[in-house]
Amino acid sequence: MSTINHQIVLASRPKGEVTPDNFRLVEAQLPPLAEGQVRVRNHYLSLDPYMRGRMNDSKSYAASQPLDEVMIGGTVGEVVESRNANFAAGDKVVGMGGWQEYFTVDGGQRGVLSKVDTTHIPLSAYLGAVGMPGVTAWYGLMKIINPKAGETVVVSAASGAVGSVVGQLAKARGARAVGLAGGADKCRYVVEELGFDACIDYKQHADLKSLSAALKAECPNGIDGYFENVGGMILDAVLLRANAFSRIAMCGMISGYNGEPIPLTYPQLILTNRMKVEGFIVSEHMEVWPEALKELGGLVASAKLKFRESVAQGIASAPEAFMGLLKGRNFGKQLVKLV
Amino acid sequence: MSTINHQIVLASRPKGEVTPDNFRLVEAQLPPLAEGQVRVRNHYLSLDPYMRGRMNDSKSYAASQPLDEVMIGGTVGEVVESRNANFAAGDKVVGMGGWQEYFTVDGGQRGVLSKVDTTHIPLSAYLGAVGMPGVTAWYGLMKIINPKAGETVVVSAASGAVGSVVGQLAKARGARAVGLAGGADKCRYVVEELGFDACIDYKQHADLKSLSAALKAECPNGIDGYFENVGGMILDAVLLRANAFSRIAMCGMISGYNGEPIPLTYPQLILTNRMKVEGFIVSEHMEVWPEALKELGGLVASAKLKFRESVAQGIASAPEAFMGLLKGRNFGKQLVKLV
Repeated sequence: MSTINHQIVLASRPKGEVTPDNFRLVEAQLPPLAEGQVRVRNHYLSLDPYMRGRMNDSKSYAASQPLDEVMIGGTVGEVVESRNANFAAGDKVVGMGGWQEYFTVDGGQRGVLSKVDTTHIPLSAYLGAVGMPGVTAWYGLMKIINPKAGETVVVSAASGAVGSVVGQLAKARGARAVGLAGGADKCRYVVEELGFDACIDYKQHADLKSLSAALKAECPNGIDGYFENVGGMILDAVLLRANAFSRIAMCGMISGYNGEPIPLTYPQLILTNRMKVEGFIVSEHMEVWPEALKELGGLVASAKLKFRESVAQGIASAPEAFMGLLKGRNFGKQLVKLV
Repeated sequence: MSTINHQIVLASRPKGEVTPDNFRLVEAQLPPLAEGQVRVRNHYLSLDPYMRGRMNDSKSYAASQPLDEVMIGGTVGEVVESRNANFAAGDKVVGMGGWQEYFTVDGGQRGVLSKVDTTHIPLSAYLGAVGMPGVTAWYGLMKIINPKAGETVVVSAASGAVGSVVGQLAKARGARAVGLAGGADKCRYVVEELGFDACIDYKQHADLKSLSAALKAECPNGIDGYFENVGGMILDAVLLRANAFSRIAMCGMISGYNGEPIPLTYPQLILTNRMKVEGFIVSEHMEVWPEALKELGGLVASAKLKFRESVAQGIASAPEAFMGLLKGRNFGKQLVKLV
């Protein structure tokens, strides 16, 4: 077994767009395990939009990523060494292992490492449809949008890890699911593979009027629920087509993460349409995870919930893959394979 | 008894600001009562910001006010003639009597006319603290903001019919109440008479930075709830001081009613602060009226809930009084006295 751990640390905070020099690849020696500790070899690292927010030095959101420390991130892997009675070498686990090849952790700390069953569910899915992105989709759709059969639910970044689950769950509830994605390939996938009713290629719409017209065409009965993964012009366009008593679950606003605020053009529509707009972070709703994971795991194991992965190879590729994710270059859940 | 009814009808829809020629004063003959009908002499007409929205020809909000028909509006008055067993001459009533001196209505229609008790509550209060504005305040505060003791609640248009009730109810729940009002006189009234903890004169703050600093000074623990009566820069400033899990009840956005949309500068704060923003129209929540009116009536009868009225005299004064209301020239609940 290697005694070297390659890690990516945050070298500097981005000024606007993330650049390669915001990260630094470092080598660390793996220390001997202390009593109670577990060492995991990370097989996959999850890259997620929320990480962009953590790179800022901001007061209000979740804790900032400290400079010169290993970038945070969800991982799945295999226990390679254990001095903890609850874990044994060979166990498959999910945890917040960070951007590094090995993850050494106190196995007794609550919630940092969980064993997973890979009999019917692939290990990487625990970072996607049966992990944080899946539960995020489940929470926003079930707890905020709560669609009734026959209603119309729109989701942005529809081919992504979260959006793909939102639409499929909405369909399962009898709603019309309309996605937004960037490019004809992604849109075809969203409709043909994931089973959405329609998908709009937002790159074909340069202005609000055009995008709003496309939404009108695909949502002839208006929009009852919107799962927001992007922000910016798409949110404006959705508001123009929102029905009375519609609900918006605000999960991500990638286009605002770089610092330039993108105004909401018609906030008065929230009033005139008596809408509910609610922001959430899924890690603050741990009480729903067991219920959500049970439903999502069952759907994945029975192949009723489909998903797709973009896999970069090797820890050194993580920064570039992450920058691609922020620009929508991934197609499905973005992972970094480390073995 | 007069046989002439003076009425104000909508002559044209405003293009931008409301102007006097959007209205027309007309004289109508009072027809003989049909079986089941009741005739009310309106004592007070209520003027409310929502009427501005009705003057537009818009699809999404509550029904448009038809052209050449009597302007809608709440009224209180006295039954002067009745051919309905449920009403007798002398009864004091509240209803949607419109901008006119007499109101003739089928007394059997549900909810159009209600008898009120003026033993302990002045008749005009049924258009304010114990009427639609009071229930509006009650609903937004109790059902959307739902403040806990020790939290901070901010309300705009704090000296007005709705805002004054919001702050007093928030205080009664043990919250810190901070108002926003236009001018030193209104602010003094809000603090000294209504008992708010503080009131900010928004006219002293020309830009977002200045207003936000004033909010920071008066809300040292941040803002947990905001009752929105105005929109525009005040909403932007509140968002900059909003706490995690704060709630915004969107009740009115006067500054947007004239057609020019006022963008929301930092919508991503709804996400980063995991906020809930909810628009509502109190007439869609009739189920809460009995509970709300009981509490509000008790508080007014025991002089624990204070309010103030701006009274214009005579039906012909209604348009000018309404235009003044939209510009914040009223001080407290705006009424037109018709007797």
